Amino acid sequence: MPVGTQGTVKAVAQDVLESLGAEIILGNTYHLYLRPGHQSIRRIGGLHKFMSWPRALLTDSGGFQVFSLNALRKVTDDGVRFRSHLDGSSHSFTPEHSVDVQIALGADILMAFDECTEYPADRTRAQESLRLTMAWARRSLDHFRAHCHEVPWFDPKGCCMQCFGIVQGGMYRDLRRACAERLIEMDFDGYAIGGLSVGEPRELTLEMIAEVLPLLPKNKPRYVMGVGYPDEIEQYARMGVDMMDCVLPTRAARHALLFTSEGRLNIKNKQYAEDQNPPDPACDCPVCRRYSRAYLRHLMQASEALSGTLNTIHNLAYYLGIMQRVRTSLESKFAVSPSDR
Amino acid sequence: MPVGTQGTVKAVAQDVLESLGAEIILGNTYHLYLRPGHQSIRRIGGLHKFMSWPRALLTDSGGFQVFSLNALRKVTDDGVRFRSHLDGSSHSFTPEHSVDVQIALGADILMAFDECTEYPADRTRAQESLRLTMAWARRSLDHFRAHCHEVPWFDPKGCCMQCFGIVQGGMYRDLRRACAERLIEMDFDGYAIGGLSVGEPRELTLEMIAEVLPLLPKNKPRYVMGVGYPDEIEQYARMGVDMMDCVLPTRAARHALLFTSEGRLNIKNKQYAEDQNPPDPACDCPVCRRYSRAYLRHLMQASEALSGTLNTIHNLAYYLGIMQRVRTSLESKFAVSPSDR
Repeated sequence: MPVGTQGTVKAVAQDVLESLGAEIILGNTYHLYLRPGHQSIRRIGGLHKFMSWPRALLTDSGGFQVFSLNALRKVTDDGVRFRSHLDGSSHSFTPEHSVDVQIALGADILMAFDECTEYPADRTRAQESLRLTMAWARRSLDHFRAHCHEVPWFDPKGCCMQCFGIVQGGMYRDLRRACAERLIEMDFDGYAIGGLSVGEPRELTLEMIAEVLPLLPKNKPRYVMGVGYPDEIEQYARMGVDMMDCVLPTRAARHALLFTSEGRLNIKNKQYAEDQNPPDPACDCPVCRRYSRAYLRHLMQASEALSGTLNTIHNLAYYLGIMQRVRTSLESKFAVSPSDR
Repeated sequence: MPVGTQGTVKAVAQDVLESLGAEIILGNTYHLYLRPGHQSIRRIGGLHKFMSWPRALLTDSGGFQVFSLNALRKVTDDGVRFRSHLDGSSHSFTPEHSVDVQIALGADILMAFDECTEYPADRTRAQESLRLTMAWARRSLDHFRAHCHEVPWFDPKGCCMQCFGIVQGGMYRDLRRACAERLIEMDFDGYAIGGLSVGEPRELTLEMIAEVLPLLPKNKPRYVMGVGYPDEIEQYARMGVDMMDCVLPTRAARHALLFTSEGRLNIKNKQYAEDQNPPDPACDCPVCRRYSRAYLRHLMQASEALSGTLNTIHNLAYYLGIMQRVRTSLESKFAVSPSDR
């Protein structure tokens, strides 16, 4: 899922995202709550309508940004008080308020309000954090079920919004297992594994995913949050992960880093100044079909806005291409051949 | 002609420009000379190939930027010494060097090196400036004719590059007339009226165009440089001006100013915060078909890159739409009806 923090996947227009085959994008509740405000988006008819994105949308709970962008936050059992990174104004998110904001945004998938446990965290800290996350999961889901129909555009015949729970537990396998089991009892519409890619070594990320994934129901979406590099997302998808999101392809693009079939390419490098090859000779994206490394390097050197746009389009195409190949290979692996019928 | 200063019409990809119907765009010789360098672009195969723009390109002479971006320039009969606005390095443009740089860029239309007379300028100053411009026009054209074939991609069967002369003369009608007559004797491929939109009142702009335009051969392109607002370009086009360029639609877009059939609209204004109308209800551009004022305002407020892109697409569509309507109305005005045959 490309990340569209403020109601836009940075530098890329919606029709381009559609043509790249993006079926779902992510919006950040924290950012949209602060600006333009969830009530504004609700009055307009929801985030789909606001940003003109008819395909699927997922909103996070806002928790991650509250924790990562606010040094002065105050956490209690009730929720989190924090200051806006925009103007210093004081706000609070509780599980109920996060769900209310997400209902107003009206995405297809909402996330339960959780605490993303930092890394490293000792066992006592991870346990305490998990206690909050599990209590908040219960409150998030109850509030969601009671209020998810309360939007002006609710269509009783249409699809209902879904609410996913988030497995935390730090880097402790037993805590992770306990959390997964409790969330499954609550019967969420889907399950995410959160609190990964927060600075831990990659083997640990993999260990946690390998521990939790088999516990999660196969008939519901399984989502690993905040990953990752191209080889990571391929690895996790092949393990059975259905959904992932990461700012890496878009953020790296804006900082000159292109992911290609030949490896990573820093398009700022002088060696590309007159290189007429496409960014990735094996790529069929609109950028690789039309533009050279020399041109992309020039745009970056000249601080031109088109630089971010073209780099991002390529990186998203590369990421979406990986997922497409994984899907195709899984489909052929599990396809019923005529002789098997 | 949309302006593509550094080999890109700021924030808009080439396929979008094509779909908007832009048939020719302008590149700035001064900027491309400094970065990435004309020799680099020549080795790559010219500006068309470098920026992947198969339609027409016009390059200015570099003179305007040398004069407007360089407080420390030194003008002699030979040319202009100036310092790069990027790194302070010392450079000089003579008519011959400007033409060499433009040949290396390989646009379809090159401009003679001129001095854009400032406003206000007294008669003595305007005369002296015009003396330079006319001497430089002769040298530009001679050098162009001697060297325009010296590019690796020259195709003797293809179209040759063209060189346009520029009418200067300050705000003095007789100087303007004298300049036009001298340039016509030199037999350029087309003629531009320069030194306008430099701070003079609009009636004076109009007076100068009205004075010069009838003198210029009707069978060659007539180009007014650096104009203007939507009503201006319509007015001048109806007077017989064939070509115009201006940064206004693109620059204004990046600063929140949209041109619409209902007048100018500052998309930052709070009144648009929940306005679900398209920027211009009468416009059929991809932005007006898909996005609301509320969304464009949000993108601007949030300093999102997509803001510049969408605003620019709309403004360019609006400008190109004006020209399209003028063309259609002129075609019907001069069409031979069946009964006239």
